[in-house]
Amino acid sequence: METHKQLTIGLFGFGVVGEGLYKVLQQTPSLKASIKKVCIKNPGKRRNAPASLFTTDKNDILNDRDINVIVEVIDDANAAFEIVATALKNGKEVVSASKKMLAEHLPELLALQKETERSLLYEASACASIPVIRNLEEYYDNDLLHSIRAIVNGSTNFILTKMFEEGLDFKEALLLAQQLGFAESNPKLDVEGFDAVNKWTLLLNHAYGIVERPDNILFNGIQNIQAGDAAVARSKNQQIKLVAQAKKLQNGKVAAFVLPQFVNHDEHLAFVKNEYNGVVIESGFADKQFFYGKGAGSFPTASAVLSDIAALRYHYRYEYKKLYHHTPHALSNDIFLRVYVSFDNLALIPKEKFEWIEEWHAQEERKYLVGVIAFEELKTATWWKENNTSLVLTPDPVIEDVEIRKLKKKSLELAGVVG
Amino acid sequence: METHKQLTIGLFGFGVVGEGLYKVLQQTPSLKASIKKVCIKNPGKRRNAPASLFTTDKNDILNDRDINVIVEVIDDANAAFEIVATALKNGKEVVSASKKMLAEHLPELLALQKETERSLLYEASACASIPVIRNLEEYYDNDLLHSIRAIVNGSTNFILTKMFEEGLDFKEALLLAQQLGFAESNPKLDVEGFDAVNKWTLLLNHAYGIVERPDNILFNGIQNIQAGDAAVARSKNQQIKLVAQAKKLQNGKVAAFVLPQFVNHDEHLAFVKNEYNGVVIESGFADKQFFYGKGAGSFPTASAVLSDIAALRYHYRYEYKKLYHHTPHALSNDIFLRVYVSFDNLALIPKEKFEWIEEWHAQEERKYLVGVIAFEELKTATWWKENNTSLVLTPDPVIEDVEIRKLKKKSLELAGVVG
Repeated sequence: METHKQLTIGLFGFGVVGEGLYKVLQQTPSLKASIKKVCIKNPGKRRNAPASLFTTDKNDILNDRDINVIVEVIDDANAAFEIVATALKNGKEVVSASKKMLAEHLPELLALQKETERSLLYEASACASIPVIRNLEEYYDNDLLHSIRAIVNGSTNFILTKMFEEGLDFKEALLLAQQLGFAESNPKLDVEGFDAVNKWTLLLNHAYGIVERPDNILFNGIQNIQAGDAAVARSKNQQIKLVAQAKKLQNGKVAAFVLPQFVNHDEHLAFVKNEYNGVVIESGFADKQFFYGKGAGSFPTASAVLSDIAALRYHYRYEYKKLYHHTPHALSNDIFLRVYVSFDNLALIPKEKFEWIEEWHAQEERKYLVGVIAFEELKTATWWKENNTSLVLTPDPVIEDVEIRKLKKKSLELAGVVG
Repeated sequence: METHKQLTIGLFGFGVVGEGLYKVLQQTPSLKASIKKVCIKNPGKRRNAPASLFTTDKNDILNDRDINVIVEVIDDANAAFEIVATALKNGKEVVSASKKMLAEHLPELLALQKETERSLLYEASACASIPVIRNLEEYYDNDLLHSIRAIVNGSTNFILTKMFEEGLDFKEALLLAQQLGFAESNPKLDVEGFDAVNKWTLLLNHAYGIVERPDNILFNGIQNIQAGDAAVARSKNQQIKLVAQAKKLQNGKVAAFVLPQFVNHDEHLAFVKNEYNGVVIESGFADKQFFYGKGAGSFPTASAVLSDIAALRYHYRYEYKKLYHHTPHALSNDIFLRVYVSFDNLALIPKEKFEWIEEWHAQEERKYLVGVIAFEELKTATWWKENNTSLVLTPDPVIEDVEIRKLKKKSLELAGVVG
């Protein structure tokens, strides 16, 4: 059997994750991995580790030839990219948990991995303790991945759960998430969907070989979801979840987006509550599979980092199989979505932009409509996230280009417009 | 990036799984894997494939130098072992789905893999489409695996679900499972727990490095579970599931067994219904993780075989890390279990064998007691599975050696025996 590598680690960041990792490594001597040096920003802060372990000079680590692995768990995306790029160029293997940095610099990081032939692992960057990247990369290495639907942000899921189960309003639930440490330092990143779309950018690569900028993927958060929307969901025995999803279309392309969605109470994702994450993979022949675990918090993140470190002992690296060994998939904008839109003022809703409208509810406490709209319209316009307007996907929202005409005709017939 | 291997497959078995695999491979040309020859037992049977594909002589495949991968999905454990052993010795990589053969020959197969340096993959042998072996081997490669609890037999889970949800009696539910193709050709293998303990033998190896004969692992099936037991479970808002479990003890050893168990309605495993399988992994720092998917049926099995084939393109092999690179764990018999025992005739229950008895229910339709008993007693005696007696574990059943004395004293005090 192959011998495994002795790992000498240089760690960047000693916040909750960094310190968690330090403790975990002390308790798992079998891993044969030790932290030689930790780079921190603020030398004045009290730390639960010997002072000799710390430095504030990144080059103390990046230029140390004994250190063969860099673990980077800092909060500053720009600094993180500098560290990771330099580490790879200096011949070190890297483990990173910085989803924002990874998502925004994916093309450069792919090139750097090719050029340096070093490993960059980042399981902790998506769904924390759930090994979703590794499974997409290794196990679903075929053309048969029909769809993937996931709750990837623990903080928004916690907020939605508290709104649904305990009737908290949005602000109370957010405050509670922050107190429990489930929200990023800047809550906007979680709440408005930025964190989720960053994770989705990474997973789209490992699922389908897609390399796309996060800001080119349609997304929104839960900032506009109101108690009235929750009431509508409850009346249909549904919940609202922030769902990241991708679906292979009949034309071979992939539709992908991160939006709030109504989820039936008996669906797998409805099982995912509080700060947990969940992933439902639908593939040819295997039917649906469901992975579930903690998606936020210091220890689940540290545990994912730990598994990456363990994999480095066996020289593991992502092959990016869908990108390099299969024909990578392209994203498609040629679809239509069946959406629920609630609003204060009907005058601000461009009704003419809908292909057709199936429901009107003008008398409810929260006014809303259900209709079918072009994906392109949502990508280019902003009315649907402004002026207290909420958009929530229906449970099975995607209508493909090839189906739209037939469905439109049927819908107009039903409405008595044509016959 | 590493180039990948062109795979030329010799297939043994063309039943539902073999034929499923043949179809799947035709639909996934990207895999660059083709079936050159299929060995079958009965040449007279009509097949949905060209006649030139088939042979009845195993040596046509085992001695064909073009064939570099053997896929074995036959129902005869002895023949399967012969095929797999010869294939490895002839320098071929092997994918097998024969859990019984694999479990019974694990030590020889470990030795053969070392000797031949060939890969033997068998993801399909446990939980079919759920990648549990790969994840235990690769992702939970550390000392922190506290426990693993799983529903590994789709057929018994289907039967129990139908008994609970639709009030079918055991025999009706078994017949339905057989009609739907969820039961092995010999239902005894499923129903009496043989299939589950075979799978558990394999998973104990990848989880903890344990190499043990299946008949040395304590197990039972669901053959004695009656409508009266189901009624008791329902009255406590619980279900009965056949649960395979392993738990690391304070002494560093592992307790493992496969027995029916009461499962609370809000536990992960209660979510697992019908022919599905589920695995709950509890590890230090990551908290609980839950994997869920189809555990039986031709296509889920074929899909797992397919993922193994895909992994062979990248020269993947199990490292057996827990066995070779960590200190493997030993099984412990020094534990006690809190159990429910229901019976027709109290005289046949050796009450003196219990450490203490916590509940008596002599008036119910189904008579039962709840008590604590030594694991060793269950391993050596058979009264608990005879004469219409049912044994079902309580939800948190394991009492460690170090705790038993204190708990016994407390229990006797409560009963007013000592004080």
